[in-house]
Amino acid sequence: MIDIDIEELQIWARECGDIALRLFNRVKAQRKADNSPVTEADVMIERMLVERLAQRYPDHGIIGEEQTKIDTTKEYVWALDPIDGTASFVAGLPVWGISIGLLHRGVPCAGLFYMPLTDDCYWALGDRAFLGQQTISVVVAADHEWNSEDWLAIPSDAHRRLDIDFIGKTRSLGSAAAAICYVARGSALGAVLTYATIWDLAGGIAILKAAGGVGVTLSGVPLDNVALLEGRVIREPLLFGAPGTVEALRCRIRARR
Amino acid sequence: MIDIDIEELQIWARECGDIALRLFNRVKAQRKADNSPVTEADVMIERMLVERLAQRYPDHGIIGEEQTKIDTTKEYVWALDPIDGTASFVAGLPVWGISIGLLHRGVPCAGLFYMPLTDDCYWALGDRAFLGQQTISVVVAADHEWNSEDWLAIPSDAHRRLDIDFIGKTRSLGSAAAAICYVARGSALGAVLTYATIWDLAGGIAILKAAGGVGVTLSGVPLDNVALLEGRVIREPLLFGAPGTVEALRCRIRARR
Repeated sequence: MIDIDIEELQIWARECGDIALRLFNRVKAQRKADNSPVTEADVMIERMLVERLAQRYPDHGIIGEEQTKIDTTKEYVWALDPIDGTASFVAGLPVWGISIGLLHRGVPCAGLFYMPLTDDCYWALGDRAFLGQQTISVVVAADHEWNSEDWLAIPSDAHRRLDIDFIGKTRSLGSAAAAICYVARGSALGAVLTYATIWDLAGGIAILKAAGGVGVTLSGVPLDNVALLEGRVIREPLLFGAPGTVEALRCRIRARR
Repeated sequence: MIDIDIEELQIWARECGDIALRLFNRVKAQRKADNSPVTEADVMIERMLVERLAQRYPDHGIIGEEQTKIDTTKEYVWALDPIDGTASFVAGLPVWGISIGLLHRGVPCAGLFYMPLTDDCYWALGDRAFLGQQTISVVVAADHEWNSEDWLAIPSDAHRRLDIDFIGKTRSLGSAAAAICYVARGSALGAVLTYATIWDLAGGIAILKAAGGVGVTLSGVPLDNVALLEGRVIREPLLFGAPGTVEALRCRIRARR
């Protein structure tokens, strides 16, 4: 197991959170080429994290949402989303956070996701996942046990792209990392994402795997992290949850296009 | 205009928020007869607000989600939801808050909605609506101006109950009052609710109206607050937004049953 100072990472994430909170509700967003918003906070936080990671882990690569791409062929590569959930952030909604993942030959092996407004810090190093100081794990429940209070995290384009046959509630949180972490902590039963990149996913997947969960495409293929690292966007819907949950969800969710 | 001490109400709402925050993430929920969760925080907050309102406004009635029903035939009646978004609260999600509305002969005339985790306090007295100290107003945009970054607040059963033809994002926030207030502040373009009671709606509708918005049923009928006050649940989907927005949404949303 690689030697990562997770406490230091947590301190950095909280500093990033303080920057973001100072700008929350006073934010002016610009649009990127794909029409997604980017804010001053995204840019400032990514710059700060990249500086610190490059200094602390000089042998590692770094890839970030806001255009960082340093040595991504290295054995270890950090994948950063300075604010996962920028559209929520811009809308004044509270579900967004700082996502930091570490990939070993393309496979997430450590992760941290910090939500400033709830002060929730999810993290994993190796095979145990935590929310703050408490270990977390996914819900393991057969589909006949699901009820009206169970919930799935779904994407904000689900109304156009998905048919979902589910007895419980669905919620679009606006942050892929948050969706995956609410599954990892055993709050959401599962999560569906329709648009995913390595910086959205790396931190969350490391946490989810350590919490007993998996990620697969709707057609049942395990996630190809290496393809993601190479910059390919997976456009097929992705499912996250306990292994049995994602299998059961595969029968209940249909992509419309 | 009735003489309401809105600053005092804001102080009370913040005290309620402190109670809720102390219990957030340490919550044990019970289920009500309809299977919806209720927590210690709901019960404590409603009791505190009822005591204070009864003492301060002895000529007014009070109705609350947690079984309060005092003199609801009075000219003025307070409608309280101690935690609007209890299911979110229980799930560890941050969108929930304290909703306080005042009805005059059944019509919302003042309202306050406080979200502890963002410290957002929405309020209205008469014809002006505020978020904190700033006046707020709904988005006014014709449907051909809507784009992929616009968003609608939708209910958590939308995947079962609604077909939604909308170019932008949809988000289920888990709190009816929050959904309406995000419309009132001009963040969400509109909101759709499928299950509504007077204590969910009273505060939010007073704020929305003062911010230039309206609420109608999917079939186009204005909301019948008096029926709600009498305890009838409106099961037809409800739409909230600028007058032109709700008209445009009526053509784009279909109830499945």
